[in-house]
Amino acid sequence: MTLGQTRTAAIPTIKRLPLYLRSLRDLQVQGEAFASSAALAKELMLDPIVVRKDLAITGVVGTPRRGFPVDALILAIMEFLGWSNTTDAFLCGVGSLGRALLGYEGFQLYGLRIVAAFDANPDKIGTKEHGVKIFDVRKMPTMIERMHIQLGILTVPADAAQSAANTMIAAGIRGIWNFTPVKLEVPDTVVIQRVDLASSLAVLSHRLAAQAAGCPLSPG
Amino acid sequence: MTLGQTRTAAIPTIKRLPLYLRSLRDLQVQGEAFASSAALAKELMLDPIVVRKDLAITGVVGTPRRGFPVDALILAIMEFLGWSNTTDAFLCGVGSLGRALLGYEGFQLYGLRIVAAFDANPDKIGTKEHGVKIFDVRKMPTMIERMHIQLGILTVPADAAQSAANTMIAAGIRGIWNFTPVKLEVPDTVVIQRVDLASSLAVLSHRLAAQAAGCPLSPG
Repeated sequence: MTLGQTRTAAIPTIKRLPLYLRSLRDLQVQGEAFASSAALAKELMLDPIVVRKDLAITGVVGTPRRGFPVDALILAIMEFLGWSNTTDAFLCGVGSLGRALLGYEGFQLYGLRIVAAFDANPDKIGTKEHGVKIFDVRKMPTMIERMHIQLGILTVPADAAQSAANTMIAAGIRGIWNFTPVKLEVPDTVVIQRVDLASSLAVLSHRLAAQAAGCPLSPG
Repeated sequence: MTLGQTRTAAIPTIKRLPLYLRSLRDLQVQGEAFASSAALAKELMLDPIVVRKDLAITGVVGTPRRGFPVDALILAIMEFLGWSNTTDAFLCGVGSLGRALLGYEGFQLYGLRIVAAFDANPDKIGTKEHGVKIFDVRKMPTMIERMHIQLGILTVPADAAQSAANTMIAAGIRGIWNFTPVKLEVPDTVVIQRVDLASSLAVLSHRLAAQAAGCPLSPG
């Protein structure tokens, strides 16, 4: 992804953009040149007004009756999300989740390339995992600086999360994709996005149990 | 996890329970018998009032000056989340993300055991991935029925998501952990919990870009 975009949009719109991208790529594969907002809305089960409003932020203009030009819209969304160029990221913590993410090829679609991984375990240092080399975590700061890495993926154990984040930030990382359950304390200039599998599973387990017992969930 | 709980709680509370669990397990390892809500609040950077309110739902009563009994509180939270017994789950779609999740050992901590995986690719069927056997997806319905599986993990490609979900639900699955970008249409009796890595990365990319450009994010 490329940093330095100036346009902005509401979070729900940004979250829907990957959905449009997927539908548009399907249409592209099928050889369709145009996509109507009504058809996109129907496929994604959204209100057509929402679709038109969301896509307006790309600046791509539709043609009456035909809709939006598919190729141009794909490029514009990729550009908007900063996914048209590849961003290099470091991953810190090659435990079971870290290894899993290193093996996830889907990130390439989003312009994310994990170029190196770090761990404190001497048995792991120097080895490769899914083609990505694992370095001594003590080398992370100098490598962040030298390679101008701006994005870090945090998959260390919870008790190491804040200190690993501090190390990343001190060396120049500006965004952290936080897969640990820890709520990180970071300066305002650093962006944190959290994916908490434990919380997600907790909510699922609890909703399943409440459903089984016939109890409505308390509003939250 | 055990189904059939009757107590319920607000979603933010449920999301915080795994955090308390982690802190309490650390205290247990350190040999501490009691945990004060003030100490938990400080460690997790939460308001002590929030901590006390959250933990009240477990029914475990603290002792003045000493705090909550650590062992009892761990058991009560596990019980509340339904994580004290193991739930068997099926995973559908052994692509790169499916493989990654099969390799993630952390689920065991949450009482989740993936007992079988399913795929349509003949090259994968009959093989094992991280010790979990991969079956023909056409066998999934009968296996769900026979083994009384209630939880499905969905990691198929987006265009196969709704149909795989329909198959799971028709066979008796009551909860789906949906890792696809698709908003599934399901009956009211089925619980869906979504983890959308693409949306999460879209928000992170965009916030990073907005931060770099000095733009505040639109509220939304």
